[in-house]
Amino acid sequence: MTSIHAPRLPPDLVTPALVVDLNVMERNITSMQAAMTERGIALRPHTKTHRSVEIARRQVAAGASGITVGTLGEAEVMAAGGLDDIFIAYPVWAGGPNASRIRALNEAIQLSVGVDSVEGAKALGEAVRGSRPLDVLVEIDSGDHRTGAPDPGSAATVATAAERAGLRVRGLFTHGGHGYRPNESQQAAVDEVTALAAAADTLRAAGIPTDIRSAGSTPTALLSARDGVTEERPGTYVFGDRQMLHLGAAAAEQMALWVVATVVSTSVHGQFVVDAGAKTLAKDLPSFLDGYGLLAGEQGLTVERTYDYHGVVRRPDGAAAPPVGSRVAILPNHVCPVVNLAEFLIVVRDGQVVDRWPVDARTRNG
Amino acid sequence: MTSIHAPRLPPDLVTPALVVDLNVMERNITSMQAAMTERGIALRPHTKTHRSVEIARRQVAAGASGITVGTLGEAEVMAAGGLDDIFIAYPVWAGGPNASRIRALNEAIQLSVGVDSVEGAKALGEAVRGSRPLDVLVEIDSGDHRTGAPDPGSAATVATAAERAGLRVRGLFTHGGHGYRPNESQQAAVDEVTALAAAADTLRAAGIPTDIRSAGSTPTALLSARDGVTEERPGTYVFGDRQMLHLGAAAAEQMALWVVATVVSTSVHGQFVVDAGAKTLAKDLPSFLDGYGLLAGEQGLTVERTYDYHGVVRRPDGAAAPPVGSRVAILPNHVCPVVNLAEFLIVVRDGQVVDRWPVDARTRNG
Repeated sequence: MTSIHAPRLPPDLVTPALVVDLNVMERNITSMQAAMTERGIALRPHTKTHRSVEIARRQVAAGASGITVGTLGEAEVMAAGGLDDIFIAYPVWAGGPNASRIRALNEAIQLSVGVDSVEGAKALGEAVRGSRPLDVLVEIDSGDHRTGAPDPGSAATVATAAERAGLRVRGLFTHGGHGYRPNESQQAAVDEVTALAAAADTLRAAGIPTDIRSAGSTPTALLSARDGVTEERPGTYVFGDRQMLHLGAAAAEQMALWVVATVVSTSVHGQFVVDAGAKTLAKDLPSFLDGYGLLAGEQGLTVERTYDYHGVVRRPDGAAAPPVGSRVAILPNHVCPVVNLAEFLIVVRDGQVVDRWPVDARTRNG
Repeated sequence: MTSIHAPRLPPDLVTPALVVDLNVMERNITSMQAAMTERGIALRPHTKTHRSVEIARRQVAAGASGITVGTLGEAEVMAAGGLDDIFIAYPVWAGGPNASRIRALNEAIQLSVGVDSVEGAKALGEAVRGSRPLDVLVEIDSGDHRTGAPDPGSAATVATAAERAGLRVRGLFTHGGHGYRPNESQQAAVDEVTALAAAADTLRAAGIPTDIRSAGSTPTALLSARDGVTEERPGTYVFGDRQMLHLGAAAAEQMALWVVATVVSTSVHGQFVVDAGAKTLAKDLPSFLDGYGLLAGEQGLTVERTYDYHGVVRRPDGAAAPPVGSRVAILPNHVCPVVNLAEFLIVVRDGQVVDRWPVDARTRNG
């Protein structure tokens, strides 16, 4: 993928700006929802991609069964915004100051959290003792080797500890994160389905409920939504990004979020500099991509180097530099950390600014 | 550098947390100020490192001549916080919606901005036409090849255009960013001194003032503060970081900012996972460092992989995993983007929390 086209942009943006193409985002939300509804699978979008109450509400309005978050802080922000069914897909540590936070959230909304250790289960049980029972899903490792019980027996051990701690085990979840590598999303989806089924068999044999069997990532969501999986948790699909495009998990016409930047310097030969640096584009650089973002246009230029506030774009031999003051649109490599760096998203439809949504849960990492 | 010790930490922090060791930060501020005062050089610290009004005030109270920022938004936040002498060390584009912002700032405080192009100078002149004259410094490239006039003649062209546009040229500035490479800070400092002197000669010959000759970066600050340089603009020195430690630009006892994280999972063999991921540690990975941060302690462990909210630490063969729920302190690779990801800094003295400072200018990238 070497060239891509940006949407029509409004004039007079203060740059760097994060622009959401609303038509595209709406299509992304409805098409993922339709695909899951058709398969009879619950969609619980991961809202870490946008950290926006407004977008989470739209996902639920479109048919999502609830939302997924990655941190207690995200859950608190989303709950305050009216989202009332939240799964924290993370092995949340419930000790210390987190105990009262979890208890308060669990009394306020339909909360469920992940657990992958006996110690974690005990701390969660302590946190909600004497209060409303807390729903948990046991995390299993389906091949990404990040977190999660490594085998069905370990999953059963964690589930049993959770029940003993007074928690309500609702089932299992996994994240086939190895599907973010080229040509591995199909295998990662198979691994998600297989690992969930094997762990579910073991838990059922031990008399532990496994009603929820949740998988998910944008590369695997449409591939593992089958054969006993009951729920998917993709996040990035809402905006798409350069990584998803390269992995074949989203098409060019599904790219909904663009970084708009201004050319600020052409003084060094062979390059130009834009006002989107590492504090705007982040520094995600998957091994299969060059540069920190792809500029819209036929030339397929990339942001080759970043400083905090400078993005350096090498230009082809003989090509003229764009004028200082002109604008470029950049497709970010990985959209999640980019959105997290912004105060708000500028929402555009057909070239007109129609709204401005805060990134409500930015900096809420714990 | 394979092992380092963290300060005494207070109990019951919500993690991930950014902890500032106040004794160390105070020493960093006073020792850099003393070194510059002794040399008769103005210190104008770059506040992009902390984006904190409180810390900027402390730097000025310690003797700084003013502050440096990287964006108009940072300048607005700092001005609102009472900082009244601000240099935007950036080739600010003054067209579109930025024009009225620059004009308002220039009427409110002692503002100066960078310029490295004729077009940029014209736009700045338009922005303040009919208002108070705006001070500018012409940026020159001393070898980092990012921005700045590439030779003295080009610098004079920009300076002349600036004067014609009604701007008040005060002098020159450069950033020897190539000093961030191992064993190159000495050369980068020489380059800063040499390039400033050469451009100043040319401007003086053309009758253009060059009272300010400003250099700066933490690796070069103490090395280029001589021979005609009048001002230094280091930023990172206030906190230090793993990169500065490796470059020899700061010592272990100057490390003032730590990421405190909790172990949340040990379920995958050979590793453990902490709750500081890429949205806390950022993803800066200089070629001379391994991992996304160095854990305090004798073992010299690093965060080998990050996800948005997970940091994966490989543990040595045979070493026991730390218990789930235990805490670690992590020295970040590059402190500037890490601070930018936080809502506030937790200020600790002798193991006690004594304050909490907001990262006021976070997300103010334009």
